[in-house]
This record gives sequence, C-alpha cells and structure tokens, in this order.
Amino acid sequence: MKVYRYPNVEQVQEIVTRPVKDAADLTATVAAVLKDIRNGGDEAVIRYERQFDKAELTSLAVSEAEFAAAEKLVSAELKKALQLAHDNIARFHEAQRYSGIDVPTAPGVRCWQRSVAIEKVGLYIPGGTAPLFSTVLMLATPARIAGCSEIVLCTPPKADGNVHPAILVAARIAGVHRVFKAGGVQAIGAMAYGTESVPRVSKIFGPGNQYVQAAKQLVSLDGVAIDMPAGPSEVEVIADATADAAFVAADLLSQAEHGVDSQVLLVTTCESLIAAVEAEVERQLNVLPRKAIAAAALENSRIVLVADTHEAMAITNRYAPEHLIIEAADADALASRVVNAGSVFIGHLTPESAGDYASGTNHTLPTNGYAVAYSGVNLDAFCRKITYQCITPEGLAAIGPAVEIMAEAEQLEAHRNAMAIRRKKLSY
Amino acid sequence: MKVYRYPNVEQVQEIVTRPVKDAADLTATVAAVLKDIRNGGDEAVIRYERQFDKAELTSLAVSEAEFAAAEKLVSAELKKALQLAHDNIARFHEAQRYSGIDVPTAPGVRCWQRSVAIEKVGLYIPGGTAPLFSTVLMLATPARIAGCSEIVLCTPPKADGNVHPAILVAARIAGVHRVFKAGGVQAIGAMAYGTESVPRVSKIFGPGNQYVQAAKQLVSLDGVAIDMPAGPSEVEVIADATADAAFVAADLLSQAEHGVDSQVLLVTTCESLIAAVEAEVERQLNVLPRKAIAAAALENSRIVLVADTHEAMAITNRYAPEHLIIEAADADALASRVVNAGSVFIGHLTPESAGDYASGTNHTLPTNGYAVAYSGVNLDAFCRKITYQCITPEGLAAIGPAVEIMAEAEQLEAHRNAMAIRRKKLSY
Repeated sequence: MKVYRYPNVEQVQEIVTRPVKDAADLTATVAAVLKDIRNGGDEAVIRYERQFDKAELTSLAVSEAEFAAAEKLVSAELKKALQLAHDNIARFHEAQRYSGIDVPTAPGVRCWQRSVAIEKVGLYIPGGTAPLFSTVLMLATPARIAGCSEIVLCTPPKADGNVHPAILVAARIAGVHRVFKAGGVQAIGAMAYGTESVPRVSKIFGPGNQYVQAAKQLVSLDGVAIDMPAGPSEVEVIADATADAAFVAADLLSQAEHGVDSQVLLVTTCESLIAAVEAEVERQLNVLPRKAIAAAALENSRIVLVADTHEAMAITNRYAPEHLIIEAADADALASRVVNAGSVFIGHLTPESAGDYASGTNHTLPTNGYAVAYSGVNLDAFCRKITYQCITPEGLAAIGPAVEIMAEAEQLEAHRNAMAIRRKKLSY
Repeated sequence: MKVYRYPNVEQVQEIVTRPVKDAADLTATVAAVLKDIRNGGDEAVIRYERQFDKAELTSLAVSEAEFAAAEKLVSAELKKALQLAHDNIARFHEAQRYSGIDVPTAPGVRCWQRSVAIEKVGLYIPGGTAPLFSTVLMLATPARIAGCSEIVLCTPPKADGNVHPAILVAARIAGVHRVFKAGGVQAIGAMAYGTESVPRVSKIFGPGNQYVQAAKQLVSLDGVAIDMPAGPSEVEVIADATADAAFVAADLLSQAEHGVDSQVLLVTTCESLIAAVEAEVERQLNVLPRKAIAAAALENSRIVLVADTHEAMAITNRYAPEHLIIEAADADALASRVVNAGSVFIGHLTPESAGDYASGTNHTLPTNGYAVAYSGVNLDAFCRKITYQCITPEGLAAIGPAVEIMAEAEQLEAHRNAMAIRRKKLSY
C-alpha cells in the first residue's frame, strides 16, 4: 500500500481519483448478442449458454424438482444463516415503506403521492465458483416487500446444467417467483426484451462482469431501467489511535479479496497505526485462500495520514466511498458529517462483512464515486412514486388565474384554455 | 384522431405501443461536441454559443445586473403567478421530506437510513420563443428544499446575449444559485465535466431536444446521473358519460399543442361522447395559435371505445401514460386502480395544466411508457439515501455466526475473518 503523509492539494486529488477504467469498448460485441437474443429468443439464449457456460439446456426455467433437489444439497447450518440474514434484511427494508403524503396545497387543491411497486423486475446473479447467494437475498427481499408482481432471476448454470443450490434456496427464502438458467449478456437481453420463457421486465438489478455491465447500459438506452452504474468494489477505513490494527487490516483485506481492481483506502490520524496495520495485513494476507487477488488489490491501495478528523472527513466526502468504516473514538460524530458514501459502518465492532451478509442493510451500493449522486438499492428502487390531484371549484378559483397567466406567458394557449373553459363554465 | 371501437387483442397492442422513434443516430455528433467542451471549457462553450445561438458572449455567468434588469421586465401579474405556483410546489415537495428510519434489526444491531441532498445539481432549461420558466420552478424548488448546496442552471441566450427575463425571475424565486448562458449539448457538457465558469455537477435534470437528450445519455455513461430518459409528452383521458366533451377536448388539445410528436389518447365507455369530443376538438382547434402543431399531433392520436372501466384501466396500465386525466363519475375508484402512470388528474375540474403550472405536483414526468419503471421528479430525485449501522458485542453474537457461515460458503475467507477476528477478541 502506498503511504501518503499529510498530503498536499495535488496528492489529495490523486487519492480521491479512481483509476481510469480499461477503455476496451465492448459495445459492438454486446450489442450483437443482445440483437440475437431479441430476435432468437429462447433458442438464442440456449445457444449462448452452450457457447459460454458449456451447458446443454433443453429448457431455461428451473423446475420444481430442481428446487427440491437444491433444498437437500444445502446444509441446515447455511439455510439457517440465510434465513437469519433474510429476516434482518426484511426488517430493515420493511421499515422503509412509504405511507404516502396528502397535501392541501391551496384551498380546494388536494395533491397526494403514493408509492407503487414496479410490476416486473429482473435480478441478475453471476455464477462462478463462489455464487453470490447473498446478493439474491439483497435484491429479492426488497422486491417482494415492495410488492413486485413478477420477480424473475437469471443466473448462469454450471456445465452440468444445474444452478448452484444455495442460489435456489436463497431465491425461495427471499420470494423470487421464477429462476432461469441464463448468464451474461444473454440473461440481460432475455429480461430486457423477453423470450418465450423469460418475461420482459421493466427494471434490471444486479452485479456482473464488464459484459453484463455493458449490456445493462445498452438496454437502459432502450428504456429498461437499471439499478445503477457499476465499478470495482471499494472500502475506506477511517481510524484513529483507538483503532485495533488487526481489525483494520481484516477490514481492508475483506475488500481486497474481491478482485484485483478492488479499491482499499485507509485514512488515519495516527502515525503509529500505519506500521501496525501494515504488519497485520502482511500476517493475515499469508493465510488467505485468495491471497494473490488481495495482494494485487493492495498494490493499488493507499494509506493516508492526516492531521485531524476534519481533514479525514474532507477526503472522505470527496472520495465518496462505497463502504466507509469508522474505527475511531468519535465515530458517531464523524458519521454525522458524512455527505457522500454508500453505507457507513460505525465503531470498532462493525465490520463491512456484517452489512455484506446479515445486519439488514443492503450490500448493493454505488461504487466508483457514484455515491455523490446514487443511492444503494433500497425499497424505493423497486417502486415508483405516482402523484395525484383533485381540484374543486374553490381550487379552480385559487390557482386558475396563475395557471392561465403562466400558460399565456409560455405561449401555450391550449394549456390556458383547459383551465379557462372550466372556470368559464363555473363562472369563476 | 383514429377511432377504435371495442378493440381486439391486436388492436389493444397497437394502441399501447408508442410510435418507433426516428432512428437518427446523433451519437457521433454529440460526442464530438462533448469532447470539445471537456477539453476547451468556457472557450468552447462560447464558440458553440456563437455558432448555434448566434450570441456573442464574453462571459457565461448571468450577472447581478442582468438579474436586476429581468425583475423590471417581468410583469407584476406574472411574478405573482410564479410566486403562487412556487409556493404550492414548495408545499408539496416539503411534505416529501424523509425523516429517516432507525431499526434494531437484531439484538445489538442497529441499522439506520437517512436522506442526504446531492451536493451539486445542474438544471437545463431549453430556450426558444416560449421559454419554460415553469420548469425552472419544478426543478429548482425541490433542489432547494432538498438542500443541494450548489444549484446551477444553464439556458441558451437569445442572439442579443440575454436570457429570457422570466427564466431569471423564476430562478431567483425558486433558489437557483447561479445561471449560465449555455444551451444544447454544450450546456450538458459544461455541467457534466465543468469549465472555468460552470461547476461540474453530479446530476443533470431537465428537458431538451434530441441533441440534449443524447448528450444526457452519453454523460450518464460517464457516471453523471440524469433525471430520466425522455420522449414525446403525452396525455390519456379516461371519460365516461358524465364527461363534458368541451373539457375533454380542451385537455386533449393542451397536450397536442406541445409538438407534432405529442401523444393523445382518449379512452371512453360512452359511444356518444366520441362525436361530441371530435366536434369540440375541431371547434377549439381553429382558434389556437399553435393550430398546425396540434392538428399534426392529433393525426397520430386515438380515441378508444371500451365496454367498461375494467377494460379502460387494463389499457391504461399497459399504456403507462405520462399524464392521466380521469373524467368519470367513479374517478376516485379508478385512480386507486392505477398501477402505471406518471401523474393522475382526478375528476372533471382537474385539467393537466393545473399540474403543469401551479397545483404543486411536479410536471417533469416519465413519458414513452417509462412510467412502468421511473418516477417523476420529486424530492427524492435530489437526494441519496445513505445507510448506517453500529454493532455491539451482543450484536456480534447475534449475527456473527451467520456472517461467517455465509462468507465461508461464498468462499470469501477475508470477509469471514473480519467478523471472526472481532468475535475471537471478545471471546464470542
């Protein structure tokens, strides 16, 4: 990890700047696959599954028998953990329900707003050796609580044509309606445009590699909503002299093991913590199965020594971390000064992995600095807020003249007339 | 207007399908201008303003003297109307404030969520003969209420270098911090990337022509958030035998006058209303200044006769109109069955133009069927919801084992360790 001590203005700029992404333009490749799925439907998805996942599929939908088999393959211990995580996630997202507002904005003018679930949503869960069943819980649980009437999930099968059983068990716990065997661009295309088997959805959620991300961006230009833009995962730790170097090192490593492009940043007010954390990182790294990945990620990572927490917060709010862990004596006070972050973990006993799995908050969060404008996935992400209004004769008198004057000044006479014709009839 | 009587399945599909957009690909042109703005800054913006708006600018920022001059050019009557509209918009959006949630998801695990304003937002207001000062109120008022610390607005100057005075007056009423003279792609580029004068913003809002929309889409691929995708404006009216044909016609025309590509749809259960509305449209159309535009829009518009309100609502929810006006005896009951719409206007005395200007609801709404997945602009659009959590030793005991089991099953050992190292230290 590169160490900056009391960085100057230019160095701070360097610290908060994300590495430039590989500019490989996948657009043409991805667009061709999407077009093929749009035209070919199930047949095209099955063909790409043969090509990319080496799976020979006869149908895309996971059958009831496959769900039943999965139940037997997942240990009771993991099922219990999934249920506990689900219940906490459900509690936190249930609490986000919007009861609506109903406002008399003027005499005789009643305006209200309510939240209505998106009808059809699609969740994408990548495959690989370590399937992200935790993400199934994070996406499907709020979708079910929101009341989405069709929650479909696509995930790539293994070469034997099966989906990882923990994904199916998590899908059942969280309330997914249907699971389809489809990965990568073909999965995004199937959900965006619909096939004979896979329903067309209105919004697509979930992580994925750069092809999946490019596919999500392309279908979003066709009007299919997506959860948020993606980038490498990242954590920032703010630590003072009260921090436990072993905890800080463990937190940095838990992010670094995600991928070689993961971003890890430690901002500290304590000079002596730096060497202690470096030593702990070295020690803990050596026993990690994903040591090579974590070590590579640490190469690009930074430790920053600052004079005080004021500077620490200034850097933090410019960096806009996806995850922020505050391991400091005044963690609560610092947390209240966070303006830009995805999710904040407060105190010495609150590792990011708590929120990654089971505390209840969502782990689908804006990375790459997108936290300046985007929220993490929450209940709102599965809803729209629709507005309503109803006007009485008194209301026409209250706002009618203003409407007519403004419409006239905008040279929209028919707009004016829609108000005037009513006022005239009522002799207002 | 084309009339469908008791449409069959294929005809319903035709009714709810939007016309295919002109496939003209502006990407290369727009990308070149954006690149030029990114590299050239103010100089490039000034150059494009000379080229496209015929304006010779020496600086982009609207000066205090220009604001003062604008105050004198706008009539007292219009100012009063703007203030009334602003106050209603403010009341409705103030009521949308989110007080946050704070949930003990498990013993010793506290998770909370609060809403934090996006710091820097950019509003785009198109120019032209009829400047949309109402949109200034609709975008800037919630931005100010949210607490955005930098609210900038770009709008093209006229050839004499001045901005329309009503735009400046509305900007001051609503709380815009700075106004810049820049239009089209150059304005979007200036706000997305920043120039010497124009600050870089995190999210861009506002309407515009197809070049502006393409620019918003392109900068969104660079991580700048945008309000929503755009399309031609549209209204659907549901009317029964109680409807006033003159009101219905006025409402259809108020949408039709927007542009030749505006969409207008009347769904009625009353056969005799059709001829009456057609006659009223003819009569009212003849006296409109924007008669040619409205007539062209009506060419592509539809009247649909259905058997009952059940069918009317089925078509409505499939069409997902931007604006829905329900002029029927049981308007309230029908409104409660709306699943997909931007904004709903209930009863015979609630024209869309009320919400376009002064009732308090926002008029920046999802069109082109995007209401299936997108909300209109509201207070949330200017905020992010950040999550927080704090865990005690008791909390580690409550969720620690589940976190470790799940992390292990996802083969993320460092994630497991970040929890295990804390539990070990506390001997849990």
